[in-house]
Amino acid sequence: MRDIAVFTGSAHPDLAKEICEHLGVPLLPTRIDRFANDCIEVQLQGNCRERDVFLIQPLVPPTQEHLAELLFMLDAARGASAARITVVLPHYAYARSDKKDAPRISIGGRLVADLLTTAGADRVLAMTLHSPQVHGFFSIPVDHLHALRELAHHFRGYDLSNTVVVSPDLGNAKEAAAFARMLGIEVAAGAKQRFADDKVVISSVIGEVADRDVIVLDDEIAKGSTVFELLARLRERNVRSVRVACTHGLFTNDAVRRLSAEKEIEEIVCTNTVPIPKQKSTDKLTVISVAPALAEAMRRIHNGESVSALFA
Amino acid sequence: MRDIAVFTGSAHPDLAKEICEHLGVPLLPTRIDRFANDCIEVQLQGNCRERDVFLIQPLVPPTQEHLAELLFMLDAARGASAARITVVLPHYAYARSDKKDAPRISIGGRLVADLLTTAGADRVLAMTLHSPQVHGFFSIPVDHLHALRELAHHFRGYDLSNTVVVSPDLGNAKEAAAFARMLGIEVAAGAKQRFADDKVVISSVIGEVADRDVIVLDDEIAKGSTVFELLARLRERNVRSVRVACTHGLFTNDAVRRLSAEKEIEEIVCTNTVPIPKQKSTDKLTVISVAPALAEAMRRIHNGESVSALFA
Amino acid sequence: MRDIAVFTGSAHPDLAKEICEHLGVPLLPTRIDRFANDCIEVQLQGNCRERDVFLIQPLVPPTQEHLAELLFMLDAARGASAARITVVLPHYAYARSDKKDAPRISIGGRLVADLLTTAGADRVLAMTLHSPQVHGFFSIPVDHLHALRELAHHFRGYDLSNTVVVSPDLGNAKEAAAFARMLGIEVAAGAKQRFADDKVVISSVIGEVADRDVIVLDDEIAKGSTVFELLARLRERNVRSVRVACTHGLFTNDAVRRLSAEKEIEEIVCTNTVPIPKQKSTDKLTVISVAPALAEAMRRIHNGESVSALFA
Amino acid sequence: MRDIAVFTGSAHPDLAKEICEHLGVPLLPTRIDRFANDCIEVQLQGNCRERDVFLIQPLVPPTQEHLAELLFMLDAARGASAARITVVLPHYAYARSDKKDAPRISIGGRLVADLLTTAGADRVLAMTLHSPQVHGFFSIPVDHLHALRELAHHFRGYDLSNTVVVSPDLGNAKEAAAFARMLGIEVAAGAKQRFADDKVVISSVIGEVADRDVIVLDDEIAKGSTVFELLARLRERNVRSVRVACTHGLFTNDAVRRLSAEKEIEEIVCTNTVPIPKQKSTDKLTVISVAPALAEAMRRIHNGESVSALFA
Amino acid sequence: MRDIAVFTGSAHPDLAKEICEHLGVPLLPTRIDRFANDCIEVQLQGNCRERDVFLIQPLVPPTQEHLAELLFMLDAARGASAARITVVLPHYAYARSDKKDAPRISIGGRLVADLLTTAGADRVLAMTLHSPQVHGFFSIPVDHLHALRELAHHFRGYDLSNTVVVSPDLGNAKEAAAFARMLGIEVAAGAKQRFADDKVVISSVIGEVADRDVIVLDDEIAKGSTVFELLARLRERNVRSVRVACTHGLFTNDAVRRLSAEKEIEEIVCTNTVPIPKQKSTDKLTVISVAPALAEAMRRIHNGESVSALFA
Amino acid sequence: MRDIAVFTGSAHPDLAKEICEHLGVPLLPTRIDRFANDCIEVQLQGNCRERDVFLIQPLVPPTQEHLAELLFMLDAARGASAARITVVLPHYAYARSDKKDAPRISIGGRLVADLLTTAGADRVLAMTLHSPQVHGFFSIPVDHLHALRELAHHFRGYDLSNTVVVSPDLGNAKEAAAFARMLGIEVAAGAKQRFADDKVVISSVIGEVADRDVIVLDDEIAKGSTVFELLARLRERNVRSVRVACTHGLFTNDAVRRLSAEKEIEEIVCTNTVPIPKQKSTDKLTVISVAPALAEAMRRIHNGESVSALFA
Repeated sequence: MRDIAVFTGSAHPDLAKEICEHLGVPLLPTRIDRFANDCIEVQLQGNCRERDVFLIQPLVPPTQEHLAELLFMLDAARGASAARITVVLPHYAYARSDKKDAPRISIGGRLVADLLTTAGADRVLAMTLHSPQVHGFFSIPVDHLHALRELAHHFRGYDLSNTVVVSPDLGNAKEAAAFARMLGIEVAAGAKQRFADDKVVISSVIGEVADRDVIVLDDEIAKGSTVFELLARLRERNVRSVRVACTHGLFTNDAVRRLSAEKEIEEIVCTNTVPIPKQKSTDKLTVISVAPALAEAMRRIHNGESVSALFA
Repeated sequence: MRDIAVFTGSAHPDLAKEICEHLGVPLLPTRIDRFANDCIEVQLQGNCRERDVFLIQPLVPPTQEHLAELLFMLDAARGASAARITVVLPHYAYARSDKKDAPRISIGGRLVADLLTTAGADRVLAMTLHSPQVHGFFSIPVDHLHALRELAHHFRGYDLSNTVVVSPDLGNAKEAAAFARMLGIEVAAGAKQRFADDKVVISSVIGEVADRDVIVLDDEIAKGSTVFELLARLRERNVRSVRVACTHGLFTNDAVRRLSAEKEIEEIVCTNTVPIPKQKSTDKLTVISVAPALAEAMRRIHNGESVSALFA
Repeated sequence: MRDIAVFTGSAHPDLAKEICEHLGVPLLPTRIDRFANDCIEVQLQGNCRERDVFLIQPLVPPTQEHLAELLFMLDAARGASAARITVVLPHYAYARSDKKDAPRISIGGRLVADLLTTAGADRVLAMTLHSPQVHGFFSIPVDHLHALRELAHHFRGYDLSNTVVVSPDLGNAKEAAAFARMLGIEVAAGAKQRFADDKVVISSVIGEVADRDVIVLDDEIAKGSTVFELLARLRERNVRSVRVACTHGLFTNDAVRRLSAEKEIEEIVCTNTVPIPKQKSTDKLTVISVAPALAEAMRRIHNGESVSALFA
Repeated sequence: MRDIAVFTGSAHPDLAKEICEHLGVPLLPTRIDRFANDCIEVQLQGNCRERDVFLIQPLVPPTQEHLAELLFMLDAARGASAARITVVLPHYAYARSDKKDAPRISIGGRLVADLLTTAGADRVLAMTLHSPQVHGFFSIPVDHLHALRELAHHFRGYDLSNTVVVSPDLGNAKEAAAFARMLGIEVAAGAKQRFADDKVVISSVIGEVADRDVIVLDDEIAKGSTVFELLARLRERNVRSVRVACTHGLFTNDAVRRLSAEKEIEEIVCTNTVPIPKQKSTDKLTVISVAPALAEAMRRIHNGESVSALFA
Repeated sequence: MRDIAVFTGSAHPDLAKEICEHLGVPLLPTRIDRFANDCIEVQLQGNCRERDVFLIQPLVPPTQEHLAELLFMLDAARGASAARITVVLPHYAYARSDKKDAPRISIGGRLVADLLTTAGADRVLAMTLHSPQVHGFFSIPVDHLHALRELAHHFRGYDLSNTVVVSPDLGNAKEAAAFARMLGIEVAAGAKQRFADDKVVISSVIGEVADRDVIVLDDEIAKGSTVFELLARLRERNVRSVRVACTHGLFTNDAVRRLSAEKEIEEIVCTNTVPIPKQKSTDKLTVISVAPALAEAMRRIHNGESVSALFA
Repeated sequence: MRDIAVFTGSAHPDLAKEICEHLGVPLLPTRIDRFANDCIEVQLQGNCRERDVFLIQPLVPPTQEHLAELLFMLDAARGASAARITVVLPHYAYARSDKKDAPRISIGGRLVADLLTTAGADRVLAMTLHSPQVHGFFSIPVDHLHALRELAHHFRGYDLSNTVVVSPDLGNAKEAAAFARMLGIEVAAGAKQRFADDKVVISSVIGEVADRDVIVLDDEIAKGSTVFELLARLRERNVRSVRVACTHGLFTNDAVRRLSAEKEIEEIVCTNTVPIPKQKSTDKLTVISVAPALAEAMRRIHNGESVSALFA
């Protein structure tokens, strides 16, 4: 079997280290410099020749810098005769750009999929893509994991007898329904209208939520505007308590503190697909690691074992 | 300006003729034969050289035969030195296959997009794709029209003061919400679980429907299983009346008659993106033509005018 | 060595089973469904990851359906991370479309070769392509077997002292000449004019056939029009007896029965590259299996052994 | 309309000049040099930007040098922003390599088609390709002319009442049959076996030739071995006279003189697709120009008119 | 003639405006936003359909952000059916990465050329690429302008009788020699060793410089380390005065002020391929505009006129 | 491990044999023929299936013939199912054409890189490319060796206390500087102007050369014009002795004898990347073999070991 070689860019080295510990392999060093004109230069500092190379790089802010790093790492690995290159994308920011809802814009999720392939990617390991169709934007094989299992495991520790899962958005309600089924509880959803990327109005909540403990589930939380909007509606419906859960905790604009300041919100749960600096954290924040799941998927990819079987 | 040349396969010649009438250009003949071993042979019987060629072919049942026809027409037009080839896809059946919800299946919507490009397509004109992300499956420019405007125009003829739009599925509710906004009315949605392609259970309807006139809106209706399931839930909620609307009226399994037999259903409205043979029709069926919209889009594509402006 | 994984579509499961028996490996199950709008859905029901995948599917009637199945199987295998995908094409109907003998038609043999590659094929194992140049239509490696050896083995069982091989067509006469050399006998040929795919006139037979036992050899027999035409000319020349041999027995239009009804025809010999339903068969029909040859070629492809050496 | 720009390499400048005279456009100069290490350097000495560029270069001996010239001309024209580049290939030597009749050889006709496309060719204008399937080796549009009309026009000047067309090879007999139909006469053919490229045995002639005037028709004559072999068989059958006709007169190994020395041979007719130096010529040689046909096809390609209509 | 449509990203809007003024066409607006997860979104706010689109974006710091903007603009223009897309790259930072001088690094100049093509670029207009070979990294046509003419025009205003051009680096000396020939004066060069991107030692100056007025010429000046090193050597050789000239004035690390502080340096001359904020400027800095040259080249590209003729 | 299979074309069989001896593997036979129309035909006469194939072919005069051989060998190996194909290019003549220094020429180094990839090359092993940027012309992995180590080893045998390395050209001076550092001595350079490929004027030598022993170092010597020009300048500066060294000894126009006739020239040293026929040799010529270096690189490529480590 060809040897494995794992590298990371600068997007989330802690996650990469944790994955490598689970795999029992070293995280090989990557040198990332700039020419004086800011042109990036990346050197993979470990032999790639005929190796099974994995490049771990969630595309998180500063997203464009991290994308460029990844593209240069890919090209370097290919030029260094890697046998196969798998891009590990715990977060794929460009998946948000998955349709053409205005004229003369790019569908970024497709464009970046093509750029990664041009730069040398042979396959992708992704987690909770913004919509399941984004899988089809890639012309190379994709293993698409979900963190619902990890999140559900966390919530099974609570009394869920009076609990309902609420999706902030009808468009995402299928994920919430699947999550609710995993927990054996009901689902409701907000009827959301998005006027711009961060301007949202939730006109109503369809489903029963009064006097219930609510788990709000979304795929990603950035500024938290949607959650705040939903919270206003839930308050009007007299919910008993709120817990907020998501896979991708981007938490821009001081979102964790602002959410934590709301008294109905008892807990904010996310995974570590996106790095969360200590200064962003509060007592109410719980971060669940996806490193074991990603490491196991990488092991199976490397050994040619079924990945779908893992998540059956 | 290069001349236009319009051809059609055998999928829906009536629509093609109607489009050509609106454009004021002839529908050029296509000869479709089979070798004795069933290998298809297509001849475009009109000069293509340096022409702006449009091939009209909704991918409707028998879908695979019509796909093969279209691929052969594309290759013939390219080999005959067409200046540009636009595929007009009033219905794109493969859009239903837009995600990988089981291991080791194809994402057909992406695969067929690539096949059309391989065979010579330069651009696509599509209508109401099953999900908006399907646009991103194509590597060539797509103009994506919606028939909501045509359907809304029809319903504005009615008294809508007590009416609500109901989406059978949370996943589709965004379209329904947009449609409701066009009509200035409210929206509700069924919480649907799909166990297989034609096995559906709607567990509940979220939103107010009791004593209301309901317009059920879906992108396509095939066997109608979803509508029947939804109808059962709506009856339990004592709705006043039901009208059913969709863009793509596939109506397999005698669906029009079976829907028409339901007394609550007052009307079934669809467009002519899919051919509807006379024997399928009933008094309750209204078919609205999308030929004017498709013809206008083709005219603008041919003249290099903005298509998005048309639908602003 | 990577494991082998063999699947078949619905075109000819009996041949696939027989090949697998010769190989001593299981034929893995394939699920083939349709969405309600007739869009095909194929699931390969066996692990493909890093396997050496073989997809057996002769492109026989209904040819377009079988092509679509194969394209979806290819894409599914690629998306499921197959190490290599070999398409086994015992019959390639599209090879009949190998030149542009009318303006604005497709060269289907080339087009479908490109489509198979787009969908994920890495290599092809074919048998008796309609013309040897069709090999060059593929941009991927092709192993091209011939069934002449199998057919010759059958005829060596007869007294051939007064026998001549007759090609119905000058264009195919090289194959017939090679076959005659294998049997150590002479060759003649009909001067054929094809006015359409099934309209044929043979104006004369060049070569000595009077009072001879004739073996008519063609690559494929569909409606049999050519053979009937040739038979008329052979009768005029007072041949003693006729046996008809071909690789691909498509036998449309009740061709076996109609040929069997001719008293000069003593035997019709073909291989099982095309499935022959029992109800088509007659006492005069002999079907020779190519499964051993295909299985041996697949074994050699899998093991990286020379295939050309096999047929030296 | 974009301007036309015609260039030629060093393969056959006389033909290029003659074509340009028919078109009424100048033949633009091409500078062809070598670096000291023999690396070729080609400069197109006329503006190509947004022009409709035609590169005339029959691939004749020294074939590989002429191929390299053409590839460099193509790349130069593309880099110089040509709007469209048409390769005019009056002779395509690589068409001889159209099938894989030995293991581990290249199908050169396909390989070179791909190389021309890689170097920048947008379309091809070819003449009398060695087999019609070679058309399908190109992924770009091909206009394929035949010189039969020009040759037939020449022979119509003779009394053909006792004449028969003889194809040296069964494999080529279809062309001969078409030619015979154009002249309203009969056809016969030699049963040829080729042991190597220039080692040929014709075992018999099938068809009536005794006491007839014979026109031997082949697509190309190089060393003439096939014609000499056929001549021996024709002599045995007491033919009255022989005329030899072909499109491509390569005439290596002093073939014109050696053929002219045969007393039965009254005339050798070819076209000027291949340059014939004066010292090769004899009294019996007639060379017919294809420049008018190529010029007319180029004119139609440039103007977007039907080329197939020209040869209907 | 198709209409022209010019857009710019955020890299250097002043240059874009100046170019558009010279062309007499409007600079169309571009909206550049971010999703909350920092994924970029670009909208071209002017009709692109069938237009001749020019995207002006020097790749200057922050280089990776500007690259991402450009890639999204390209994809948007392609998806919006632009007839042709020309990327105008007054500065191409990635050209610095033009060879593999360490193992397992990317050749960024080639990688980014491929990415631009993947995103939709049809052609490139570049200026003073770091090495002339970078031209060959692009698979699409490149028009490569040089600013030497503009710089020479500036220096012709001085008395050059005692002046010598000095290249800081032997590797760049050819450009300096060409520049010296344009001014009719001599050339000298520093023997430079580069230990890292910004660590440089010039061991000696080869050529006569004592008591001379020196023009130091380089393609780009970033931190100025090379110039300071050279200045130390020139001082040792007692030069009379120094003027510093370059095409690309990146001037990082307060380079203009630090250079201006050196008493021997009388003037620093650069062009506006890179934006120079006011606060960076000093009395000694002269900025020459390349907008007229770029505008004229764009006009010629648009009209299909020779660009090389312009710079003959 | 897959078996290795090494073939060579007709460019330099002696070098190929020597490499194979170092590797301890047989040089497999290649049959190279011509059709009568000069179309090349190549057969690889050893099993390629699933082998690690190396094709050794320096592109030396007759360069175009050798290129065509190599392209046909590549296509044959790919069609014969090679697992991987590495092109070994000890000399790559087309690297001389690495920039566009005149309008409407090809950048041959890039074009031929693309042609090799189209024909089937998976990777390249090259030696002393004319400029380091040529590496970036290839889209496939390149291992780029230098012969400086071999040349330096030779010169270390001499007393170098009074020796200086002289580059004939400022543009090449970096290589000369690196070579001088390897020998611990100084460097100088000629200021060369090239008016055409073989018309060169060296106006001056910058650096100290008077009374020194000179080693002239160039990457390749063809006609030797540059060396003769430099020699004239060195004579004027009263150098003590001259040795000439290069990697690629093309030596056209009787260059070895003409150089040997110069009394200052004591020795001419080159490697065997280019074949040197006996009749070209003189007493002053020393040829150093690069076969050990190429063989070791091939061994490491085959075994997946680091090649850069070898030359650290």
